[in-house]
Amino acid sequence: MKIHNFSAGPSILPASVFEEASRAVLNFTGNGLSILEISHRSKDFIKVMDEAEFLVRKLLHVPEEYAVLFLSGGASTQFFMAPMNLLPEGGKAAYADTGTWAAKAIKEAKIFGTVDVVASSKADNYTYIPKDNPVTSEHQYLHITSNNTIYGTQYHNFPEVAVPLVCDMSSDIFSRPFDISKFDMVYAGAQKNMGPAGTTLVIVKKSALGNTGRTLPAMVDFRNHIENGSMYNTPPVFAIYVSMLVLRWLDNLGGLVEIQKMNEHKAGLLYQEIERNSLFYCPVHVDDRSLMNVNFLLHDNTLEAAFLEHAKSVGCQGIAGHRSVGGFRASIYNAMPVEGVMALIGAMQSFEQQNG
Amino acid sequence: MKIHNFSAGPSILPASVFEEASRAVLNFTGNGLSILEISHRSKDFIKVMDEAEFLVRKLLHVPEEYAVLFLSGGASTQFFMAPMNLLPEGGKAAYADTGTWAAKAIKEAKIFGTVDVVASSKADNYTYIPKDNPVTSEHQYLHITSNNTIYGTQYHNFPEVAVPLVCDMSSDIFSRPFDISKFDMVYAGAQKNMGPAGTTLVIVKKSALGNTGRTLPAMVDFRNHIENGSMYNTPPVFAIYVSMLVLRWLDNLGGLVEIQKMNEHKAGLLYQEIERNSLFYCPVHVDDRSLMNVNFLLHDNTLEAAFLEHAKSVGCQGIAGHRSVGGFRASIYNAMPVEGVMALIGAMQSFEQQNG
Repeated sequence: MKIHNFSAGPSILPASVFEEASRAVLNFTGNGLSILEISHRSKDFIKVMDEAEFLVRKLLHVPEEYAVLFLSGGASTQFFMAPMNLLPEGGKAAYADTGTWAAKAIKEAKIFGTVDVVASSKADNYTYIPKDNPVTSEHQYLHITSNNTIYGTQYHNFPEVAVPLVCDMSSDIFSRPFDISKFDMVYAGAQKNMGPAGTTLVIVKKSALGNTGRTLPAMVDFRNHIENGSMYNTPPVFAIYVSMLVLRWLDNLGGLVEIQKMNEHKAGLLYQEIERNSLFYCPVHVDDRSLMNVNFLLHDNTLEAAFLEHAKSVGCQGIAGHRSVGGFRASIYNAMPVEGVMALIGAMQSFEQQNG
Repeated sequence: MKIHNFSAGPSILPASVFEEASRAVLNFTGNGLSILEISHRSKDFIKVMDEAEFLVRKLLHVPEEYAVLFLSGGASTQFFMAPMNLLPEGGKAAYADTGTWAAKAIKEAKIFGTVDVVASSKADNYTYIPKDNPVTSEHQYLHITSNNTIYGTQYHNFPEVAVPLVCDMSSDIFSRPFDISKFDMVYAGAQKNMGPAGTTLVIVKKSALGNTGRTLPAMVDFRNHIENGSMYNTPPVFAIYVSMLVLRWLDNLGGLVEIQKMNEHKAGLLYQEIERNSLFYCPVHVDDRSLMNVNFLLHDNTLEAAFLEHAKSVGCQGIAGHRSVGGFRASIYNAMPVEGVMALIGAMQSFEQQNG
């Protein structure tokens, strides 16, 4: 039976990428050396790093005034690196609180300056994206989380504010085009739309750096990583290599305009079934529903275990909702084929026939 | 032609590990899911994490009062995390300067307290390990670098001092037994003796933590990683998995007592040939020569390019010395079979016949 992997992250990647990565673990250089044993300073790997950066710039239309970095540590590390690099000593930043990850980013930023939470949907269990973000010129930036994996919400329009945006795009980067010029910084852990766990993409406006008055450890200082082309220390070679393969796959597919259409199609089918099906409902406001993480609940939650079992019996795996919201979450990132979505819809329909 | 990979890191790993890792990229769970797409919270991965920690404890005899963590960011990240977690605000630490990496650790620590460089071999181009480390009770710890990859030196006896040791063991951990009880903290980037680039092992004495008076970002705070079993955020799944395979290989081989014998045998053969061969010499003091990174030079350095070419023609790759010292460096970590060392010795002998 074909398994459909709906995990929230680490998550499904294209099958062709698994095949190529598997071969590279045995023989990457053509003379029998593994991608896992070659020097990061070797020509073979420098080509990988260069192509990865090239593809990020091409797919997202990133101009030269922004640096593109592949770091390690996960987006959680950027929760403190962003304010340490961008927020001057004694400065103020605005944050929007749209879920668990946004709240963690807020907590870390508070160590380094004054944080004003200018918008929050916490009181409504994060079921929508707040539209009003009252920032002032005192704020160095507005930090947002573009897609909220746990709650299934997503910014479909980025806030129009007079300060630069800083954005955790971990769970929807490369899923649609966006205008980088509004952002001083975008960051994303790889393990949803870009690659396996182990590397984090940082896109940062070079002119926004160096103004904090802080002495930064070398590994925390973006300027240091920029100077060294993401190779100040040994980078996470394999995670960057697999990310490059995923970006190449995306580019060959037609880039972000094409993938957005596919993502809208997949999510559209699934939300439509949730609306139609008498057993299920979606708790998220219609305008803010995520195209990446589709959350849904049973009207009769005593059937939860039975539906999980039923979905699993037709190969649908990883659809249990996060423990903080319960219910179900289908993560349908770029690499999820429409066949996977159809399999889940089929499971929802047959479950309705059995229990409706 | 069989390639012998003498790279300093990332570096050679056991062939059986490459084979198993390659299969896991295609099908890890038995039902067709890749190690790259499964959740880090899945039973399949939790088993990997548990076994990795178990093997570290077994191989190094790490008691319960120490935590074993698999983090990301490389040893360079530990250069600042060590003092941030261990050195109280306004405190003093002693550091030994035995090479490039030690010097970087010193630079980072200075951001967080007073650093006394109590021992240094810098004036002699780091060709030996200083034996005298005049620490006082004012020093929170003495930081050392157990093996100096670039200069080919290694502590064969750890300093006997009245303060705890903190040690960057990136390039010789798991190459020999040692007594963890002298250390408050040991850390090591994986990419030499433990696995591929992308994870860093930290072994830290729990009672040494929480005494700095500093507010730490969550990702910097060892206590946070301990509480969450190295899963506060998404860990570098694949790098930890491959490290676990390498540790399993080492355990099956007989552990550290056995690997030490093999390492002494391999290094002994190579140093013996350097001494015997009329063309080469080793710049490192005899007592402090590394069993991991064997540095050697040509008396006539105009022959350097020719020897590199000659070595390559018999499959010996990655033996160019670091640009800061020149000459040659053969990294003969745990996974380098004696056949690789014999191939290099053969190349040195045939080169002597041609040029002697």
